Amino acid sequence: MSTPIDFYFDFSSPYGYFASTQIDQLAKQYNREVVWRPYLMGAVFKITKRQPLVQHPLVDEYSARDIARTARLHDIPIKFPSKFPVMSVAPCRAFYWLDNQDGDKAKQLALAIYNAYFVEDKDISNSDIIVEIATSIGTDRGAIQTALQDQSVKDKVREETDKAIEHKVFGSPYIIIDDEPFWGFDRFDQIERWLETGGW
Amino acid sequence: MSTPIDFYFDFSSPYGYFASTQIDQLAKQYNREVVWRPYLMGAVFKITKRQPLVQHPLVDEYSARDIARTARLHDIPIKFPSKFPVMSVAPCRAFYWLDNQDGDKAKQLALAIYNAYFVEDKDISNSDIIVEIATSIGTDRGAIQTALQDQSVKDKVREETDKAIEHKVFGSPYIIIDDEPFWGFDRFDQIERWLETGGW
Repeated sequence: MSTPIDFYFDFSSPYGYFASTQIDQLAKQYNREVVWRPYLMGAVFKITKRQPLVQHPLVDEYSARDIARTARLHDIPIKFPSKFPVMSVAPCRAFYWLDNQDGDKAKQLALAIYNAYFVEDKDISNSDIIVEIATSIGTDRGAIQTALQDQSVKDKVREETDKAIEHKVFGSPYIIIDDEPFWGFDRFDQIERWLETGGW
Repeated sequence: MSTPIDFYFDFSSPYGYFASTQIDQLAKQYNREVVWRPYLMGAVFKITKRQPLVQHPLVDEYSARDIARTARLHDIPIKFPSKFPVMSVAPCRAFYWLDNQDGDKAKQLALAIYNAYFVEDKDISNSDIIVEIATSIGTDRGAIQTALQDQSVKDKVREETDKAIEHKVFGSPYIIIDDEPFWGFDRFDQIERWLETGGW
């Protein structure tokens, strides 16, 4: 098996959510593994001098339409969150804490968090909501509650965001395959071609 | 034949250039015509509070790579312009002046301008260059020189840009099919599906 694919995303990103529903299945077809790397995109916006789409007139309206249309095309369920975007610190902490124990379980948690936010309209910036989601997939309530306040877990999220910046990651989804970066769910066609051919 | 497709673009936009090489052929497959509508995207950036990609650290570097990779994938020739972006006032004036006389010839001019900018690295913001390009496709030199300074031609470009804004256009390419907007060359797969199915 070749080098794993790096999948960077922010838990508040609709296109990151779309990517999360497909990336592992796509990679598997080409015998590749995927390392999921949530990070805090807000920290990167300061560097790139960018802002969330919703803060741009006209673009915000178009984006809502594009998100709904893209979801329908790919049969991905979505109910656009009433609070958007949100801070994704608590989801990231929960993810990395669990990832340190069980990578597959952490992916399961990530999918459950995305579903809670983009399908069930739950406010995933709220730590109590994250505790509920984590326990719903079998995590010990006391353990996750403690983890969300643990200094080493907080540090880990900061480190992972710093590492993302070092790798010049700035969007969500942002996927790196053998040093080749692909930004956006709309690059999945190029990603598939790249995996198939090794580049062009 | 159904309603024509509206193809909005800025002459300084690489993804607009990519779209220009394919939009007519794609539309023809579905028995549709395309109305080419160049406009001044800079005027819209003020409304959307956006800036060209090159003004965003990290994004600029990624975009250069994405543009080259996308061009290779679709076999579209490109040599990234040494001066980028440029003001596209002169190209727009030449286009609309010619379009008023001969729509097909205006499209031919648009393709020649894009080729001059994105393949031959000519500065298309320079009126003299636009005169050269127009004469190379058979336009009378004196006529195009006069047209570029004609007040009614200047007004036409302003009107067309205002109309684009009224239609909530903000990017390049920005394509509207029966009231459905598609932003970006990376929406060509959705555009094709939409033309095929009439929507989903």
